[in-house]
Amino acid sequence: MADRLVVIGGDAAGMSAASQARRRRDDMEIVALERGDWTSYSACGIPYLVAGEVDDIDSLISRTPETFRNEFRIDVRLRHEVTGIDTESGEVEVHDIDHGRNFRLGYDQLMIGTGGRAIRPDIGGVDLDFVQGVQTLGDAQRLLDYADECRCGHVVVVGAGYIGLELAEAFTMWGADVTIVEQQSDVLPSLDPELGALVGEAMKRHEIDVLCDTTVTACEAGRVHLADRVLDADMVVLGIGVQPNSELAADAGIETGVRGAIRVDRRQQTSADGVWAAGDCAESTHLVSGEPTYVALGTTANRQGRVAGINIGGEYATFPGVLATAASRFCALEVARTGLAADEAQAAGFEAVEALIESRTKAGYYPGSEPITVKLVAERGSGRLLGGQIVGGEGSAKRIDVLATALMNRMTVHEMIDLDLSYAPPFGGVWDPVLVAARRTAAVVDAAG
Amino acid sequence: MADRLVVIGGDAAGMSAASQARRRRDDMEIVALERGDWTSYSACGIPYLVAGEVDDIDSLISRTPETFRNEFRIDVRLRHEVTGIDTESGEVEVHDIDHGRNFRLGYDQLMIGTGGRAIRPDIGGVDLDFVQGVQTLGDAQRLLDYADECRCGHVVVVGAGYIGLELAEAFTMWGADVTIVEQQSDVLPSLDPELGALVGEAMKRHEIDVLCDTTVTACEAGRVHLADRVLDADMVVLGIGVQPNSELAADAGIETGVRGAIRVDRRQQTSADGVWAAGDCAESTHLVSGEPTYVALGTTANRQGRVAGINIGGEYATFPGVLATAASRFCALEVARTGLAADEAQAAGFEAVEALIESRTKAGYYPGSEPITVKLVAERGSGRLLGGQIVGGEGSAKRIDVLATALMNRMTVHEMIDLDLSYAPPFGGVWDPVLVAARRTAAVVDAAG
Repeated sequence: MADRLVVIGGDAAGMSAASQARRRRDDMEIVALERGDWTSYSACGIPYLVAGEVDDIDSLISRTPETFRNEFRIDVRLRHEVTGIDTESGEVEVHDIDHGRNFRLGYDQLMIGTGGRAIRPDIGGVDLDFVQGVQTLGDAQRLLDYADECRCGHVVVVGAGYIGLELAEAFTMWGADVTIVEQQSDVLPSLDPELGALVGEAMKRHEIDVLCDTTVTACEAGRVHLADRVLDADMVVLGIGVQPNSELAADAGIETGVRGAIRVDRRQQTSADGVWAAGDCAESTHLVSGEPTYVALGTTANRQGRVAGINIGGEYATFPGVLATAASRFCALEVARTGLAADEAQAAGFEAVEALIESRTKAGYYPGSEPITVKLVAERGSGRLLGGQIVGGEGSAKRIDVLATALMNRMTVHEMIDLDLSYAPPFGGVWDPVLVAARRTAAVVDAAG
Repeated sequence: MADRLVVIGGDAAGMSAASQARRRRDDMEIVALERGDWTSYSACGIPYLVAGEVDDIDSLISRTPETFRNEFRIDVRLRHEVTGIDTESGEVEVHDIDHGRNFRLGYDQLMIGTGGRAIRPDIGGVDLDFVQGVQTLGDAQRLLDYADECRCGHVVVVGAGYIGLELAEAFTMWGADVTIVEQQSDVLPSLDPELGALVGEAMKRHEIDVLCDTTVTACEAGRVHLADRVLDADMVVLGIGVQPNSELAADAGIETGVRGAIRVDRRQQTSADGVWAAGDCAESTHLVSGEPTYVALGTTANRQGRVAGINIGGEYATFPGVLATAASRFCALEVARTGLAADEAQAAGFEAVEALIESRTKAGYYPGSEPITVKLVAERGSGRLLGGQIVGGEGSAKRIDVLATALMNRMTVHEMIDLDLSYAPPFGGVWDPVLVAARRTAAVVDAAG
């Protein structure tokens, strides 16, 4: 009998792995079990769906179950939830939601791509219907249904990370008044404060209420209690981060690590033989700190899933690690980061220096030129680039990719000065802002000795 | 007496060197001799001036002579042409154009930043007034004056390189009918033909006549003769490339190399002791081929000038070489290239493979998503990236900088697959087009064995 690969979770990590395995193993039986209603979708597109920039939930789906069945001979079963893993017998316990039945399914190899879920703070009322986390397309559908039903006039977003800010802007476009509540002193705590502040100002200019340095203490129907005041709220959206759906693996005795994420080796194999994991449920290694980390990003899920699938298919691939490169756009401001922020560098044991420059997105004389701020963090002494952050007008965010490529190659800021980057007046000045930042940072490294 | 640095040429290379030298040598006397009317300007901005996107010739000037005098204590003398270099005595011969007088000026160090000029084909009538090359701000002023005076109805652009195409589009915006004549089979011969063809089509959609595979045989007042036809022309613009202004150096016995450009060592010193050169008059080393090359680009001029200035100032810096990274925008299409094109790789002795992919500039479902084409050239066997080219909608061109950074670090296309590049729906798909291209090229490398 042919080997059977069972995949738990029909989104990016699971289906990337399944597709890659299929390419290499024509004979393999591949069954993918997804407890929700969709496969392989762009969760990152949800804010644009809420905002009305994307019309239709289906347009966020990159491959349907039919495509997987017909083009990849992958047996996708929607609304099938895996409730247990038995690594001894090599079986999973499955709950068929629509038919209310349970069954066991044997596997030769098992791919865990169970994803993550929005973190729910441990406060009263957090499980009320009007408190929504947004991680899956199912969440998005519930959110939109609820918003339509209650004609939300006022939305409170808890947490000013990427998802929180994207949803805050989306709900203003949807027509609601929006308040963001953030525990830290500025929005986007994954950026250094001076860059977060630039984004906070942009949100305020777009008439979004931004309340920092305060926490939500309780929710009750129609209201959100903060430490120092009470807000009216037709809906509360959770944006304080993502936690791994790793309980299934942990209950099966599979090793977990940072924030409970499933620990994997460089080939994406878990501590259980023949059991693989990737995506928002799995741990990663940070390429700069060298330490285990947890990063829930679509890019990572796709890349890890691909590596798992190549190995499942009998070939060899390794996943080198992550830089936690991320980008977004809020209220006409582009934002991106990669590598370690200043505080993360310190926590990882680096003595770091930093420099921040302001430049322009196009040549100064060219129409539509906007400000761009670039901050670099480098190791004292060696000048090794440790991380970077960018906030600015159109054309700013994707410049982070140069920094990500430099980090991957362990470049120093001195070496970066010599990068032969492109130039034309519609795209920037003759010294790209990234190079201006490298020059400034190199000077700071030299001065620090 | 203090050392004297004499700088020939008041644009990017010369003035970068002068500024860097000043920072390190407070005591030095610095004299910059410029035969034209401006210092330190953006020649790359000239097409936007012609197009009317930039209002005023002065806005292309980044630093005036007054700024150099007051802030850097650099004695800039406009309309002073150097007519000879005497490396034995350490003097230059200077012609003061306005006063018609000549004098000699001694130097301890000499910086040559004489730039380049538009190549003039060896055909009849090429020296007529209505045939214009565009390399300096002086050229631009003459071009605009001539165009205004003769109310140009029809402009013929000879040569479909970057400058030719930029000026072609600029003149359509100015109000002229424009014909481009190109000897090669497609526009932008520095790209591989399939990418040049995409640009050629865009030019045609914007009602620019594009005549390829043909040459200009002669010009006469009001007419341009091609091999197979005669075109009416109120003005002819030369865009067939740039040649170095290196005669002054060559006449002084200073060594020259590729296309007559001044040969320099890795510190930008010429064959004459204490004589430095940088920018469009100087040779470079190509970082991929390892061979001498001639690349006339503003980025290179600034970077080489900076290195020369650091060395003149008594510190140590080297210029590692160029990738000939270039970008532009024509008729709503962004274009960029870096490293070696397929034919250049072959000429440099590489056995190369290549792959071309088509993707989208934003997530497929996101409003305003446009096609982007990425082509990579890699070494057979090793998979080492040798070069890349990009043509596509808004947000395409600056992606070349990831390829330039990868080239600088001698990455293979296999390694590039693991680059942790940013992703958000407004900026691309979850697999950036550059990564899609790396995956495809890696597969081609593997298949080629």
